[in-house]
Amino acid sequence: MALTRYLPILDWGRRYDKETATSDLVAAVIVTIMLIPQSLAYALLAGLPPEVGLYASIAPLVFYGIFGTSRALAVGPVAVVSLMTAAAVGEVASQGTPEYYGAAIALALLSGLMLTAMGLLRLGFLANFLSHPVISGFITASGIIIATSQLKHILGVSASGHNLWDLAGALIAALPEANLPTIIIGVSATAFLFWSRKSLKPLLLAKGLKPMLADILAKAGPVAAVAVTTLATWIFGLDDAGVKTVGEVPQGLPGIAMPPVDLDLWGSLAVSALLISVVGFVESVSVAQTLAAKKRQRIIPDQELIGLGASNIGSAFTGGYPVTGGFARSVVNFDAGAATPAAGIFTAVGIALATLLLTPLLFFLPQATLAATIVVAVLSLVDLGSLKRTWTFSRTDFSAQAATILLTLGFGVEAGIIAGVGLSIFLHLYHTSKPHCAVVGQVPGTEHFRNIARHQVVTCDEIFSIRIDEALYFPNARFLEDRISDEVAANRKIKHVILMAPAVNAIDASALESLEAINHRLKDGGVTFHLSEVKGPVMDRLKRSHFLEELTGKVFLTQFDAIHALNPELAERTLRAERTTMSPAA
Amino acid sequence: MALTRYLPILDWGRRYDKETATSDLVAAVIVTIMLIPQSLAYALLAGLPPEVGLYASIAPLVFYGIFGTSRALAVGPVAVVSLMTAAAVGEVASQGTPEYYGAAIALALLSGLMLTAMGLLRLGFLANFLSHPVISGFITASGIIIATSQLKHILGVSASGHNLWDLAGALIAALPEANLPTIIIGVSATAFLFWSRKSLKPLLLAKGLKPMLADILAKAGPVAAVAVTTLATWIFGLDDAGVKTVGEVPQGLPGIAMPPVDLDLWGSLAVSALLISVVGFVESVSVAQTLAAKKRQRIIPDQELIGLGASNIGSAFTGGYPVTGGFARSVVNFDAGAATPAAGIFTAVGIALATLLLTPLLFFLPQATLAATIVVAVLSLVDLGSLKRTWTFSRTDFSAQAATILLTLGFGVEAGIIAGVGLSIFLHLYHTSKPHCAVVGQVPGTEHFRNIARHQVVTCDEIFSIRIDEALYFPNARFLEDRISDEVAANRKIKHVILMAPAVNAIDASALESLEAINHRLKDGGVTFHLSEVKGPVMDRLKRSHFLEELTGKVFLTQFDAIHALNPELAERTLRAERTTMSPAA
Repeated sequence: MALTRYLPILDWGRRYDKETATSDLVAAVIVTIMLIPQSLAYALLAGLPPEVGLYASIAPLVFYGIFGTSRALAVGPVAVVSLMTAAAVGEVASQGTPEYYGAAIALALLSGLMLTAMGLLRLGFLANFLSHPVISGFITASGIIIATSQLKHILGVSASGHNLWDLAGALIAALPEANLPTIIIGVSATAFLFWSRKSLKPLLLAKGLKPMLADILAKAGPVAAVAVTTLATWIFGLDDAGVKTVGEVPQGLPGIAMPPVDLDLWGSLAVSALLISVVGFVESVSVAQTLAAKKRQRIIPDQELIGLGASNIGSAFTGGYPVTGGFARSVVNFDAGAATPAAGIFTAVGIALATLLLTPLLFFLPQATLAATIVVAVLSLVDLGSLKRTWTFSRTDFSAQAATILLTLGFGVEAGIIAGVGLSIFLHLYHTSKPHCAVVGQVPGTEHFRNIARHQVVTCDEIFSIRIDEALYFPNARFLEDRISDEVAANRKIKHVILMAPAVNAIDASALESLEAINHRLKDGGVTFHLSEVKGPVMDRLKRSHFLEELTGKVFLTQFDAIHALNPELAERTLRAERTTMSPAA
Repeated sequence: MALTRYLPILDWGRRYDKETATSDLVAAVIVTIMLIPQSLAYALLAGLPPEVGLYASIAPLVFYGIFGTSRALAVGPVAVVSLMTAAAVGEVASQGTPEYYGAAIALALLSGLMLTAMGLLRLGFLANFLSHPVISGFITASGIIIATSQLKHILGVSASGHNLWDLAGALIAALPEANLPTIIIGVSATAFLFWSRKSLKPLLLAKGLKPMLADILAKAGPVAAVAVTTLATWIFGLDDAGVKTVGEVPQGLPGIAMPPVDLDLWGSLAVSALLISVVGFVESVSVAQTLAAKKRQRIIPDQELIGLGASNIGSAFTGGYPVTGGFARSVVNFDAGAATPAAGIFTAVGIALATLLLTPLLFFLPQATLAATIVVAVLSLVDLGSLKRTWTFSRTDFSAQAATILLTLGFGVEAGIIAGVGLSIFLHLYHTSKPHCAVVGQVPGTEHFRNIARHQVVTCDEIFSIRIDEALYFPNARFLEDRISDEVAANRKIKHVILMAPAVNAIDASALESLEAINHRLKDGGVTFHLSEVKGPVMDRLKRSHFLEELTGKVFLTQFDAIHALNPELAERTLRAERTTMSPAA
C-alpha cells in the first residue's frame, strides 16, 4: 500500500485497458500538437535554445506519469516558470553562454529536490502561504511582463530588462531599428492566433465538422502559424531581410547527463528554486484539483509535490529546465479525454519523435511567430478584473494583491513574490495580534452573556467580564495583557476580572506566561482573576502548569456561575428581570 | 491632549511636588550607586571604553524621563543588549578602533530611529512575534555566553568568540597564561558579590539596621568591590603584576556630536539594530508593565517605543551606545520609592557628577572586578528550569525554546534570535494551516449537532456535514478544499455537503476563492454545497462577492434547518428519538 502511495502508477496501471489507452492516445496527439510550438517558445522566453523546451517536454512527462496523482495534468515548460527561470539564471550568468544553460539545468535539479523533499516531509502546507491575492497578482504581473518582453521579437529589435519600466524603456529606445518583415509576420501571427483561439472552433463547427475534429484543428492554430510563417520565410528568403529565425536546432533525443554540482551556484539559485517550486506547485495542484473534481477523483497534494519533484529532477538529468503543470494544456488534455497519466507518457513519446524528426524543419521558423504564440497564451493570464473583485471584497486582500502586482512590475518576479508573501503573512499576523474580544454583561431574564456594545445587558462596576474569541497564542498573548491592564488602571472600582473563554480553542506557552502575568499583576493591584467556560482541551493543558494553583480566583463552568458566585444578588435579580431580545450573533 | 500622549512628562510634571521629589531623589541615589559599576562593566562587555557606559547612562535617562510612560523603569546599558552590540559591531570593525566606537554610536542611532518609527506607526505588535519561549531561551543562552566571555577577564587572559564553543575553546587554549593575582581578585570579587546579593541585607537587618539603609548598603556591594579591589591594586601595585586595569578614563561630560551618517554602515547594521530594538523593547515593556501593575498605573506600549527610541537617539548624540530598560535596576528603583520618571532624570545627574568627579579614581580598577559584576548579574538571567516547565506544557513551544538556546549558543545571538522567531512563526503558521474541524451529526432527541467522533449522533450517507472551528483565511483555506475533495472522492453516495460555520469569525479573499472552488468542483461532481450558521459579519462579507449567487445550495440559519430541508424524514425522526447525553464541549 505504501508503495502505491508513492507510485500511483501501480494503482491505475493495474487496471489499464485498451479503451483507456485509446482515450489517452487521442489526448496525447492533441497535446503534442499544442506543446511543440509552446515548448520552443517558452524555452526562448527562458533565454534558452529552443530545443531545451522540447527536452523539458519528454522525461518530465514520463516521471510525472509514474509519480503524479492527477489523471489529466499536462506537465512541461510554462510561461511564468520560464520567466522566473530567466530572472534567476540571468543573475548568475549571461544569456547564450554554457554557464547560463548549466544554471537553468541546476535550477531544475534544485527545484526538483526541494519539491521532492517537501513532498516526503509533507510540507505541502507551505504553499498555503502564497495567498490567493498574491498568486493572482503575481500571475497577472508576470503575464504583462512576458507579453511586453515578447514585443522585441515581434518588432525585430533587441531590448531586455527584468522589470516593466526597463523593458518598456529599452523597447522605445530600440523602436527606430524595428524590422518591417518581422513586424508583418509577428503582427499577423498574433492576429491569427487570437482569431483561431476565439473563432476557429465555432467556424469549423458551423461548417459541419465533428466537434472532436473541430477541436483538434482549432488547437492546431499555433502549429499552422508556425508552418505558414516558416514556409514564407524560406520561400521569400525573409531571413536575409532581417527576420530572425530559430536557426540550427540539434536533431535527436537529449543525452542523460549529470547536472552541474557546484555548491556556490546552488547557493545563489536556492531562493529562486524555492520560489519556482512553490509557485509551480500552487498553480499545478489547483489545476489538478479542478480537473479531478469533475470525475470525483482524488489528488494527494503531498504526492503531487513528489510527482513534480521527480519531473524536475528528470528534466535536469536530460538537459531540460524547470517545469510544472500547465493550465491550458491540462484542460485540453482533460477535454480530449485523457483518462490516466499514461496520456502524458504518450505525449512524451510524441515530443521525442518531433525532436528526432522535425527539428530540421524549424531552421526557418521566425522567432516572431513563437513570440506571437507566447503573447496570445499569456494575455489570458492577465486578470485585472480580479483587482476590482478583491477591492470590493476586502481592502486588506486588495492591498496585498496591488502591492504584489506593482512590485513584480517594478522590481521583477522574485522581489514581487517575496514582498507579496511577506506582506500577506505580515497582514495575517497583524490581524491575528488583535483578536476579536468583547466586554460582556448578562442579558436580563436569561443566564446568557453578550457584548455590552451590541446588547442591552446588565453589568456591575466591580466585575469586569471580557470574552475573547480566538485561540490564545504568542501573536495575541500580549494583547490581552494590555487590554486588561488598561481597563484595571482606568477603573479603580474593579475588584474582579473574569476571562470568558468559550471560543479559546488552544493556548500556548506565551499565552500561559501572559495569563500568569495578568494573574500576578492583578493580585498586586488587589484584583482577583477568574476564568469561565474554559474548553476541555484548554483546561487539560492548563493543568500541566502551575497556573491553576497560583490563580487568585476560580475557574467557573459558566459565566453565569461566575457572576452568581461573585455577586449573587445581581445575578438573581437580572435573571428574574423581563427578558430582552437577543440576537444569536456574537 | 495629543501633546500629553507623546510627552507624558506634561502629565505627571504638572502634579510634581516636594514629597514626590524626595522619593524620587532617594531612589536616584540608590540606582546611581548600582549603575556606576554596571555601566562601566557593560561597556566593557560591548567592547567599548568604560566611559561610554557612563555616557549611555546620562542623556538616555533624561530622554526616557520626558517621553516614557513607566514611573519606575530605569534605562541604561544592559547585559543582553551590550552582548548584541558587541556581536553586531564586531562584524563591521575591529574592537578598539575609532570605527568600532563609531559603529556602536550608529547602532544606537539606528535602533533609536527604528523604535521611534515603530512607536509613531503603532507597530508595537511586532514585538509579539518574539514568543515567550524564544525570548526566554534567548536570554538564557545570552546569559551563558556573557558569563563565559567574562571568564577571560577573571583569568587574566585573552580569548574571544561570538559563540559558546569558540569562546570555550579560546579560554582553554589560553589557560596556561592565566594570571594569579587577577584570578585572586576576580574569584574573590565574584564570591563577595554572590554573598552580598544573597546574604548581606538579611545580615544588616539582623544587626539592627533600618530596612532602607540595609537595602542601600546591600545594593552598594558592587561599589564596595570596586573600591576595595581598586585600592588593593593601587597599594600593592598589582597592575605591574599583570592585573589589567581600566586605566585612563577621560574626565568630563560627553560632548554632543552628530553620529556617523554612512549609508553603507547603516545598511550593514540595520538587521542588528532591528533585533536589538525588538529584544530591548520586549524586555523593557515587560518590566514596566509588571511594576506599573503594582500601583494600577498604565503603560502605553506604543509610547514606550517612542520613549526608548528617544533614549537611544539621545545616547547616539552624546557618545553612548544602545540602551534599554534594565530589569534588576528598575525593580531597585521601584522598591526604593521612585514615583515618577524624574527619578531617572536625577539618576542621570548622579552619573554626570560621577563622570565629572570620579573618573580619575577608576585608573586602578581591575577589569576582573567588572567581569565579576557582570557574571553575578547575568547568571540570574539563566533559567534552565524554564525548559522543563515548557516541556511539560507544550512540546511545540519546547522545540522553539530549545532551538533558540542551541542556535544562540552555537551560532551567536543574531542567528539564534532570527532562527527562534522564524521557527515560532513557522510553527504558528503550520498549526493555523490545520484548523480544528469536525464531521457532525444530529444528537437524537435534539436539534443539536455534534462531532461524530465523540458523540452518538445520527448521520445519513447522502449528506456530509462538516463544522470548521476557525476563521477561514489563506493559511488554512486549501485545507478545507482538500478535506472536502477527499471525502467526496472517497464516498460516492454523497449528494450534499454542508459547511457548518458558527465559529468562522472571518473570511478572506483566499478562503472565498477556496469556497468558490469547492462549490464549482462539487457542482462538476454532481454534489450540492450548502452553508449553515454563518455569522452576521461573515455573511455581510460574502454578499460583497458573487459567491452566494453561484452557490449551488442554500445558506441555512441553523444546521437543523439544513438537514430538515434536505432530509425532513430523518431530521424529524431523530428529533423524536430518545434523547442521548451530550457534553457541552465541541
